[in-house]
Amino acid sequence: MSEFAFDLLSVSGGARRGRLLTPRGIVDTPAFMPVGTQGTVKAMTAEEVGRLGAQIVLANTFHLYLRPGADLIERGGGLHRFMRWHGPILTDSGGYQVFSLAKLRRLTDEGVTFRSPLDGSEHDFTPDKVLAIQRQLGSDLVMPLDVCLGYPADTEQATEALRLTMLWAARSKAAGAGPGQMLFGIVQGGFDPDLRREAAARIVDLDFEGHAIGGLSVGEPREQTGPLLEAALDRLPAARARYLMGVGAPPDLIEGMARGVDLFDCALPTRIARTGTVFTRRGRINIRNGAYREDWGPLDEQCGCVVCAEYTRAYIRHLFNADEMLGPRLATYHNLSFLAQLVADARVAIAADRFEAWRRETIAEYGTAW
Amino acid sequence: MSEFAFDLLSVSGGARRGRLLTPRGIVDTPAFMPVGTQGTVKAMTAEEVGRLGAQIVLANTFHLYLRPGADLIERGGGLHRFMRWHGPILTDSGGYQVFSLAKLRRLTDEGVTFRSPLDGSEHDFTPDKVLAIQRQLGSDLVMPLDVCLGYPADTEQATEALRLTMLWAARSKAAGAGPGQMLFGIVQGGFDPDLRREAAARIVDLDFEGHAIGGLSVGEPREQTGPLLEAALDRLPAARARYLMGVGAPPDLIEGMARGVDLFDCALPTRIARTGTVFTRRGRINIRNGAYREDWGPLDEQCGCVVCAEYTRAYIRHLFNADEMLGPRLATYHNLSFLAQLVADARVAIAADRFEAWRRETIAEYGTAW
Repeated sequence: MSEFAFDLLSVSGGARRGRLLTPRGIVDTPAFMPVGTQGTVKAMTAEEVGRLGAQIVLANTFHLYLRPGADLIERGGGLHRFMRWHGPILTDSGGYQVFSLAKLRRLTDEGVTFRSPLDGSEHDFTPDKVLAIQRQLGSDLVMPLDVCLGYPADTEQATEALRLTMLWAARSKAAGAGPGQMLFGIVQGGFDPDLRREAAARIVDLDFEGHAIGGLSVGEPREQTGPLLEAALDRLPAARARYLMGVGAPPDLIEGMARGVDLFDCALPTRIARTGTVFTRRGRINIRNGAYREDWGPLDEQCGCVVCAEYTRAYIRHLFNADEMLGPRLATYHNLSFLAQLVADARVAIAADRFEAWRRETIAEYGTAW
Repeated sequence: MSEFAFDLLSVSGGARRGRLLTPRGIVDTPAFMPVGTQGTVKAMTAEEVGRLGAQIVLANTFHLYLRPGADLIERGGGLHRFMRWHGPILTDSGGYQVFSLAKLRRLTDEGVTFRSPLDGSEHDFTPDKVLAIQRQLGSDLVMPLDVCLGYPADTEQATEALRLTMLWAARSKAAGAGPGQMLFGIVQGGFDPDLRREAAARIVDLDFEGHAIGGLSVGEPREQTGPLLEAALDRLPAARARYLMGVGAPPDLIEGMARGVDLFDCALPTRIARTGTVFTRRGRINIRNGAYREDWGPLDEQCGCVVCAEYTRAYIRHLFNADEMLGPRLATYHNLSFLAQLVADARVAIAADRFEAWRRETIAEYGTAW
């Protein structure tokens, strides 16, 4: 008997409002999950991340396994205690990082051997091992090892990647996650809608508690992303939570929600914040721009976050120009607040069954540039 | 009629407990003033600086004049509004920075011409101009332009520097600070106790509202600092606040308080925090050290700050090793909290007339290494 449940509360067009119940708290969906790669959402305390409205954060299995080590985190009482985040945590499988950040040594049906980008040491990930690592971390939402393709990839590559992903998915399902953990299946399938559809159908057959869609927004032309996402979602049961991995720019969130995605994560909002790029209702701006030199208004006039209540554009611009850490802090807090408010607004629009109108208005004001 | 007052509440040995009343709030003394060079205490929000116990912060005239400019800050409503710190602010005169950071072009009786380290542009500081800049900033405690010597300096250099400092002090006193500002006189005099005594006596003759002691802890042998400080303090009236500039290591604070200093500032506690060095009751430690890899205790077991209540040494070490901004944030918060608690403890000891016992116990536990 799982301690997890996903309640679908209402729909509006293709968009869904729901509630993911976890032993560590509720996640109202659609939700954006801030990324805490190394056990910290960059520049933020966990307390701030909660205060700005996030109910769940993501952490990276690959990074934490390499440093400080899953053994150490386990001995210290698990990842929640380590990073002082007491709500639910989703950990990825490390698959994406192994294929994008590490030097591969060997890829077989059993797993993957790679070199650490930190010190060159050799490590192996197998489906069982990444689940064991995530048990040590004690995360709540758990991902199985998968093979991530970069763009472009031909049919042969995509087929082979899918074969391994499915083999590993079956092994992961058989091994199972730890007690108090919810195991997701990941839909891959590259850049061919048919292969995506097949991947989704086969993942659904394995009966995971939730479904993730990986390998999108990895460089493919923007107009392909929507159809590929739709192909995958097409075969996923409405009753289970759907998580679109690595997507977090406001227009992409809106398009994902419109197609029925419940969970999102992305490092982009925090990464661009650190170089001064902030979201506003009228699109992104870079606060270093000379136009804001004596701008005594907030980052975004319609934003309800404490940064917009307290600080001026002129001051935040000065902080970035003077290379002061408070600049990235304030921009990060704002960007995460912006997304928390965006998904909260979307939930309200779905509940009132006016998502399509909200989507049109919001995109018209924001523009489509991420 | 000044809106400022300094009340001497009690003494214990040479140490003094007092209260500086300012239009923007009370400062309990002895006090340590966190340094917000560029209009931000590095890594902190102003709200955090207040929450950890600081009642006054310091900002740098030289830096703010060059970037973003005193005109801009004035047009935005002044420095308090700009940086969101609503308590009192002390601004230095820029003298120290001109002589340590900038390329000097010309030094005359009228003032000093220098090149900006930011863009090489030429600027001049005169006694009147630095007061005008500080009026634009709207700071509360204001310093006159002075000449700062590095160590070593011979008698001829020290005598000439003192001549200019005294000439500029007289001009500054004649010009006066702005309404709602308290103007200090600065005691220089180099590394000769007799010259220090003379400098103090002459500054006192000019009848400033408070007295600062500059040009110490600039590289002179440690055993010289105490006698030089005593020589200066010797001639300062007990009824006015005494500010020892640029001193903030715990043993130096304790020795300064023992000799009757009321106010301190120093960038050291925040600077060393950013590379992982933190104060504990038993001396400084660097949290990056491998010894703390699995240390699940707080930075300092006797510390009452929220960082020590919430976070482990193992986690903070991980943050530094992973180059995460939260590391410097937490270490900075702790170091400033540590000093706020240290001066608060000293005030309690002075009120109970047991400062000497407290000093002995505290130094015995901490050691003398800063």
